Amino acid sequence: MNSLGTIFKVSIFGESHGPSVGIVIDGCPPGISLAINDFVTDIERRKGGLQKGTTPRKEDDIPVFLSGVFNDITTGAPIAISFANNNTRSSDYEKLRNFPRPGHADFVAHEKFKGFEDYRGGGHFSGRLTVCLVAAGVIAKKILAQENIICESVIKEIGGEADLEKGLQKAIEAKDSVGGIVECIVKNIPTGLGEPFFNSAESLISHAVFSIPAIKGIEFGAGFAAAKMFGSHHNDAILNKEGKTQTNHAGGIVGGITNGNELIFRVVVKPTSSTPKEQETLNIETNEVESFSVKGRHDLCIALRVPVVLEAVTAMVLADLLLLQKR
Amino acid sequence: MNSLGTIFKVSIFGESHGPSVGIVIDGCPPGISLAINDFVTDIERRKGGLQKGTTPRKEDDIPVFLSGVFNDITTGAPIAISFANNNTRSSDYEKLRNFPRPGHADFVAHEKFKGFEDYRGGGHFSGRLTVCLVAAGVIAKKILAQENIICESVIKEIGGEADLEKGLQKAIEAKDSVGGIVECIVKNIPTGLGEPFFNSAESLISHAVFSIPAIKGIEFGAGFAAAKMFGSHHNDAILNKEGKTQTNHAGGIVGGITNGNELIFRVVVKPTSSTPKEQETLNIETNEVESFSVKGRHDLCIALRVPVVLEAVTAMVLADLLLLQKR
Amino acid sequence: MNSLGTIFKVSIFGESHGPSVGIVIDGCPPGISLAINDFVTDIERRKGGLQKGTTPRKEDDIPVFLSGVFNDITTGAPIAISFANNNTRSSDYEKLRNFPRPGHADFVAHEKFKGFEDYRGGGHFSGRLTVCLVAAGVIAKKILAQENIICESVIKEIGGEADLEKGLQKAIEAKDSVGGIVECIVKNIPTGLGEPFFNSAESLISHAVFSIPAIKGIEFGAGFAAAKMFGSHHNDAILNKEGKTQTNHAGGIVGGITNGNELIFRVVVKPTSSTPKEQETLNIETNEVESFSVKGRHDLCIALRVPVVLEAVTAMVLADLLLLQKR
Amino acid sequence: MNSLGTIFKVSIFGESHGPSVGIVIDGCPPGISLAINDFVTDIERRKGGLQKGTTPRKEDDIPVFLSGVFNDITTGAPIAISFANNNTRSSDYEKLRNFPRPGHADFVAHEKFKGFEDYRGGGHFSGRLTVCLVAAGVIAKKILAQENIICESVIKEIGGEADLEKGLQKAIEAKDSVGGIVECIVKNIPTGLGEPFFNSAESLISHAVFSIPAIKGIEFGAGFAAAKMFGSHHNDAILNKEGKTQTNHAGGIVGGITNGNELIFRVVVKPTSSTPKEQETLNIETNEVESFSVKGRHDLCIALRVPVVLEAVTAMVLADLLLLQKR
Repeated sequence: MNSLGTIFKVSIFGESHGPSVGIVIDGCPPGISLAINDFVTDIERRKGGLQKGTTPRKEDDIPVFLSGVFNDITTGAPIAISFANNNTRSSDYEKLRNFPRPGHADFVAHEKFKGFEDYRGGGHFSGRLTVCLVAAGVIAKKILAQENIICESVIKEIGGEADLEKGLQKAIEAKDSVGGIVECIVKNIPTGLGEPFFNSAESLISHAVFSIPAIKGIEFGAGFAAAKMFGSHHNDAILNKEGKTQTNHAGGIVGGITNGNELIFRVVVKPTSSTPKEQETLNIETNEVESFSVKGRHDLCIALRVPVVLEAVTAMVLADLLLLQKR
Repeated sequence: MNSLGTIFKVSIFGESHGPSVGIVIDGCPPGISLAINDFVTDIERRKGGLQKGTTPRKEDDIPVFLSGVFNDITTGAPIAISFANNNTRSSDYEKLRNFPRPGHADFVAHEKFKGFEDYRGGGHFSGRLTVCLVAAGVIAKKILAQENIICESVIKEIGGEADLEKGLQKAIEAKDSVGGIVECIVKNIPTGLGEPFFNSAESLISHAVFSIPAIKGIEFGAGFAAAKMFGSHHNDAILNKEGKTQTNHAGGIVGGITNGNELIFRVVVKPTSSTPKEQETLNIETNEVESFSVKGRHDLCIALRVPVVLEAVTAMVLADLLLLQKR
Repeated sequence: MNSLGTIFKVSIFGESHGPSVGIVIDGCPPGISLAINDFVTDIERRKGGLQKGTTPRKEDDIPVFLSGVFNDITTGAPIAISFANNNTRSSDYEKLRNFPRPGHADFVAHEKFKGFEDYRGGGHFSGRLTVCLVAAGVIAKKILAQENIICESVIKEIGGEADLEKGLQKAIEAKDSVGGIVECIVKNIPTGLGEPFFNSAESLISHAVFSIPAIKGIEFGAGFAAAKMFGSHHNDAILNKEGKTQTNHAGGIVGGITNGNELIFRVVVKPTSSTPKEQETLNIETNEVESFSVKGRHDLCIALRVPVVLEAVTAMVLADLLLLQKR
Repeated sequence: MNSLGTIFKVSIFGESHGPSVGIVIDGCPPGISLAINDFVTDIERRKGGLQKGTTPRKEDDIPVFLSGVFNDITTGAPIAISFANNNTRSSDYEKLRNFPRPGHADFVAHEKFKGFEDYRGGGHFSGRLTVCLVAAGVIAKKILAQENIICESVIKEIGGEADLEKGLQKAIEAKDSVGGIVECIVKNIPTGLGEPFFNSAESLISHAVFSIPAIKGIEFGAGFAAAKMFGSHHNDAILNKEGKTQTNHAGGIVGGITNGNELIFRVVVKPTSSTPKEQETLNIETNEVESFSVKGRHDLCIALRVPVVLEAVTAMVLADLLLLQKR
């Protein structure tokens, strides 16, 4: 069930240390210009910049079009994109096989797939696959751009600090990993996207967002703060026929439907599970809880990479809703 | 797109003041005992009890089986259940047609459905339809009960207060409505439910949860607090071969897959949009922003009704995942 | 899995002798006029006319709108329609419980639903449910009519005879039931409906058509005759920029996509399984093969009722494709 | 919408002369042995043998696993397989751009995809993609084999002749292409696969079958011959508690559900559209109907390649139903 969407429909595949990771995008309209160059900026952003706290594993991350693009223009047929996995050091992981790492999918993968999972580097559960989401997001953003819709995410907090540097420094000093909060804002979004009940805009966005590894919560507009507000304060007064509201506590969605105001939501990213700190976990061979520490190359703060991925999955959902609305 | 689920699949229909509201449940296994009586407790719970702050509109809320049940046992064919709408006072709403109520779906419904929406009492967007979710939830819970899975929700906060009475009193004094926080805990849930990426357990649960009107956020386990935690603290040490963890900051889901621990998540319910307070909104006839106040019968705190609805949609998702896992 | 369609999505429910049969139509655009009267003609046609060979069971077959229609206009919310089952004589069937009728679903229903199926009158497998398909078809045809698309079916053969009367007379004389062939022609259909591969127009139409009980084959254009043709003969020469072809051996679909010519296909309807003739079948109590004969009220030739049902499911598929194409 | 299936779900991509064609198979259970060697036989069969009448274009057709297989065993994660396109002569097709070939998808592809389609060699509509179906079929057959289910197809007729050689000779003499009839038989299939109404076994099989290029009709069991039969003759008498029937006019499906007998159906394959004969078609540049002839490398009888593809899509549907039944 690794697919998402009704018209703009994506299917993801791949493992961290397998031959490649990739994505198939079905339902992209024909006639959209699309070249390798279009992916560079977002794929670079996913690397988390030159900031402290990102892993030294560097992939070239050059997308390869397997289908769906002809003369640098989408054809309307399914677009398949793959990324080769060149830079893998599987031996780091072989050693860990007996220790299902806390916070990682090792244990559940082993249970769910009956021991047949590709365990190297998190296998199919690896954050490596988010490069595919970013690629699909680049295409989705092009669809949104046709209607001037802009989707942007920024980091709001790292380790409880609004200042990124300070938050990361905290982690470095503690020799530990940290989490963060990322906000996504979508501008120029039309009124009427989403459905009442099961396919509310919040339902669809959160569905996509929770496919990003490490996300543990989402809130729209005022979000959890709404629990402490009175109705007269939370309600957004409607000011004109376009539905412009005085405030935007609803985050741009009412009754599950976009109301023409900015779409605003925030997500929480848990601290990277692979912390340099020594931890305890089960040794499944000895059946004893033992101390161990994760070696390998890992981000101190995975939240640094999240903004562009969050934009990508949001753009995918909105592109789908936009194509549905045109019916 | 008012349907949800892959095997245990539900489709909802109805309007607040139309002839009836209802739900079709496809994919329910045959052989489950099911009688009208089985619905009484949960349907009563949805009424929000005798507490202050719930609407005086009382429906009998007696489910009518249209199909799928024979001799008080499910047959395996689709189960259709309807609830008649007996107790409606549409005239209350006729007067309001020119005022799209802030926080309500009036404006977006009008835009999306081009003026053809049934506007009476919120029409298809009405909280009235949650009685259908509760009904489907009763059936889903029976499927869960076969595996001893128990799904329970409680109110954690009203108006910022852990004491319900105090929170409601605040609203009554302010002559305003209030929001709240509701927690859901699922016990005895098997390991392995959910899929990596697009159908993560969090994706599916949040998808369903955001179909409940007034929900504006969801967090799993430590949730938003994770943003301030170090990795070594957030990680849940695995203690035994069943995957039992020392802490449960993950809320029972790792890598999108249930890990055999309790499933825990919280949602925020915004304050009821229909507040007794006077508000400003657009008069779409005069095109001026005017003061108005909502008459009609409304809850001061819709969060009071949410627990049983939250259980219902959660049970629906888990029943579906359970039936999928048996493949 | 009793649903069909992507945007114009229907879910069917009900049993022959249960309280009612019905259908939920999700995704119907708002603003379409819809009154009980609109259903009369097609529902009457389904009764098979005054012809010899149709069952004397007469239902009033008056559709009841449960939702989605307000002031005789579709609202854009799901339309639920039910038909009460008033005219049932279950006792006829009680007697037969030990004899799974040849050609009927009795045996497979019992196996699949583990003995919990509603066996009365074929239960959920009953041809009675086709009245729901007809109802959804009426709405689908209204969507097609907006683009001047006309969908019409006629009987081509009964019992091997092009003359209906003659074919029926044959059955009456033989005291047996007969099958037939029904053709469907759709005019003014736009070019471009359907998708390459899995959602070809033929795939979607045949998927829907085989949900009609008693259909055992379908062929498009020249159909099975194509097996004996040379390519130069089967190919339809394109004559103008609208894609008009000289012949129509393709039946209006090339490469899975409608080509702007008339859509033509034929289906075979097997003889009614309930024949007045004495037959042999297993007595599941004695585990012996015994002679038995079907009493009850049954059509000699179910094909007589098929044309309007065939139009209905075809219209449902085309309405869905039309709404998808507008994206 | 190039995907199929509920649990065993495939998505196809690629163009005849693009970099590659491929398929993603989601929902394959973990633990199935799978090596390149397993594909050889079926991929060779698709080439149509050494028979007269198949195209001299020879691809190596070596499947490349992009994901989902680890140590020659399926992991449970999506399996992506691609085939490189090495042996392409696009220039053959460039010349034909102004002539939408009769019987081919050229015209509809141009209309549907607004002139952006990859037109070389039929692009995404090419029979080349059936190698992907064959690959998915190999995996599906392994799932079926676990339950001893065997799926086999044979050619029944070429150009109206039961003798293959004779039928092909006819085409060679006429310097034309010919069609044929292919039969598929599935043995040891369990009772209970398929659903009443929209997901009947016939619905799902025909849906998949019509995704094979050139198929124009399908019939189950007695098929179109049923139109001339009496009910007492068509009905298959049930002989024992396993549902074994005396005859098999139903082709193993009653009420949309498999009844435990052999599944039997036949399809008609139209003559190859690319016939060596001179034909007339529109020159879209001059807007005149002109004579032209197809050069390039083409099969005289595409039906020769169909059996293994028919097995593949049938196996895909049955594997999906089997995994669904285990719920």
